[in-house]
Amino acid sequence: MLNLPTYDDIVAAAGRIAGHAHRTPVMRSRTVDQELGASVYFKCENLQRMGAFKFRGAFNALSKFDERQRRAGVVAFSSGNHAQAIALSASLLGISSTIIMPNDAPASKVAATRGYGGKVVEYDRYKEDREAIGRALAEEQGLTLIPPYDHPDVIAGQGTAAKELFEEVGELDALFVCLGGGGLLSGSALSARALSPNCRIYGVEPEAGNDGQRSFRSGAIVHIDTPQTIADGAQTQHLGNYTFEIIRRDVEDILTANDLELIDCMRFFASRMKIVVEPTGCLGFAAARAMKSQLRGQRVGVIISGGNVDLTRFCALLGS
Amino acid sequence: MLNLPTYDDIVAAAGRIAGHAHRTPVMRSRTVDQELGASVYFKCENLQRMGAFKFRGAFNALSKFDERQRRAGVVAFSSGNHAQAIALSASLLGISSTIIMPNDAPASKVAATRGYGGKVVEYDRYKEDREAIGRALAEEQGLTLIPPYDHPDVIAGQGTAAKELFEEVGELDALFVCLGGGGLLSGSALSARALSPNCRIYGVEPEAGNDGQRSFRSGAIVHIDTPQTIADGAQTQHLGNYTFEIIRRDVEDILTANDLELIDCMRFFASRMKIVVEPTGCLGFAAARAMKSQLRGQRVGVIISGGNVDLTRFCALLGS
Repeated sequence: MLNLPTYDDIVAAAGRIAGHAHRTPVMRSRTVDQELGASVYFKCENLQRMGAFKFRGAFNALSKFDERQRRAGVVAFSSGNHAQAIALSASLLGISSTIIMPNDAPASKVAATRGYGGKVVEYDRYKEDREAIGRALAEEQGLTLIPPYDHPDVIAGQGTAAKELFEEVGELDALFVCLGGGGLLSGSALSARALSPNCRIYGVEPEAGNDGQRSFRSGAIVHIDTPQTIADGAQTQHLGNYTFEIIRRDVEDILTANDLELIDCMRFFASRMKIVVEPTGCLGFAAARAMKSQLRGQRVGVIISGGNVDLTRFCALLGS
Repeated sequence: MLNLPTYDDIVAAAGRIAGHAHRTPVMRSRTVDQELGASVYFKCENLQRMGAFKFRGAFNALSKFDERQRRAGVVAFSSGNHAQAIALSASLLGISSTIIMPNDAPASKVAATRGYGGKVVEYDRYKEDREAIGRALAEEQGLTLIPPYDHPDVIAGQGTAAKELFEEVGELDALFVCLGGGGLLSGSALSARALSPNCRIYGVEPEAGNDGQRSFRSGAIVHIDTPQTIADGAQTQHLGNYTFEIIRRDVEDILTANDLELIDCMRFFASRMKIVVEPTGCLGFAAARAMKSQLRGQRVGVIISGGNVDLTRFCALLGS
């Protein structure tokens, strides 16, 4: 039986990250409200420190290290944003960090991770098992492994974004949250239970990698090969044990969006709302648009998870 | 003797636009603070309604129309953002609007103006006089002309952005504000006098169109030909009578930035801060960077004026 994190853990996490994480703005758009016939609130985690919500969970987890853990250092595996989050949080807390990253990760993410002081170890994500590499390093050097999503402290940290959203705008009828391994989604669901108990929580993942949807509907964690999608932050192969338990309990449904829908949303965010959103960060809005007939007259939240996309890639995608 | 607007007019304007204009976020960046050795606060008017601060002044001016003016309608001439601001404000207030726009204005701005309900009349900005066209239309049809900057109600409305900034972050040592005709700059200076009297206010305009700098330093309004610069929001040919009087009284100096510096800032804003900023909106930050040796240890404000740039143009500029 897993000891699942609760809303109390999110409140504690909020205290730890206060003054370190940004309290990100909630944006609105008249055009979106008209398109959806709803009142839509975007929680802009692309404007979070290091460009994604991941800073919240990483900083919370590292803040709880004891003296021995701090001295030995942290190791993490990540396709990108978790890497930067751990590297930056570790550097702010005076802890050394080792990050295991895929060798095809966006150049901006690798550079940013190094810039934040992280030591980068590369691997081939289509052939090697990053979790095994991480565990080996942890054992050899006494490092503490902080996984990107399946960890109570990470989940609790990620839940602070939805907590801020509900505190700022009040209760919502529906909340759309993107989903890779489910850390942000499960944390958001915990906050919603406490602050807006009637809110329907929708997870959204790439159509090409719908393991979460299949897991949710079948009742058991489904493993898939690394999916081919532009949403590089949601290329995870399976949910976590903690995240799955919370998701199956507190989430209404898991939806999907395809790459073309994500590009449409990226273009909308940049041209009308003047914000840069990475493909993964568009998942929530894409799904809300697709089911707009069911949202008419409602109060709808969308979490924009991050904005870390190479500008050359960003422009190439917008031109396609 | 001109009856110059005062801070009281800004307070009144703030009351009129409350609930209509966004209270835009103030963003920070660790990278910027390190680069400048200062604490830098960005007031993000690119995240304002219709994508620029201009909404503030336009809505304030139109809110003061009497019954006859409302019934007849408003006319405005503008290279872009003022046009959208008048069209949107008029539409919100149930007033019809006619907008005189240059025939080479960015397509996004023309389309947005029409989308907000404005009737667009085009002219050749290298050959025709937009002010004369506007005055003729005003006389023929009884319309009220709201100029883009040289009007007390417009200046008072623009000053609300700096008012919000000072109220949120407290007093500053320096504030950088871009400058075309000087509406935002003079309004900002009025707010600074009241809320942060020791703050040095710097106006920043394109190097290719330094009429403001020459006017400021010579003590008389200098007229120039339409300057060739990517900062299309600052291609004005001269300061206004109201704006010049306030600027010469309350502004520390007027600085310039060239197009390459603006592109560097656009790239930085998009890649690191995840926001889309139009070239004109980069003027303030470009100047702050250039004089960073004088800002060490200080509290520095920068107003990002707008984000209305065609995405194809945005990507072309970033690639250049």
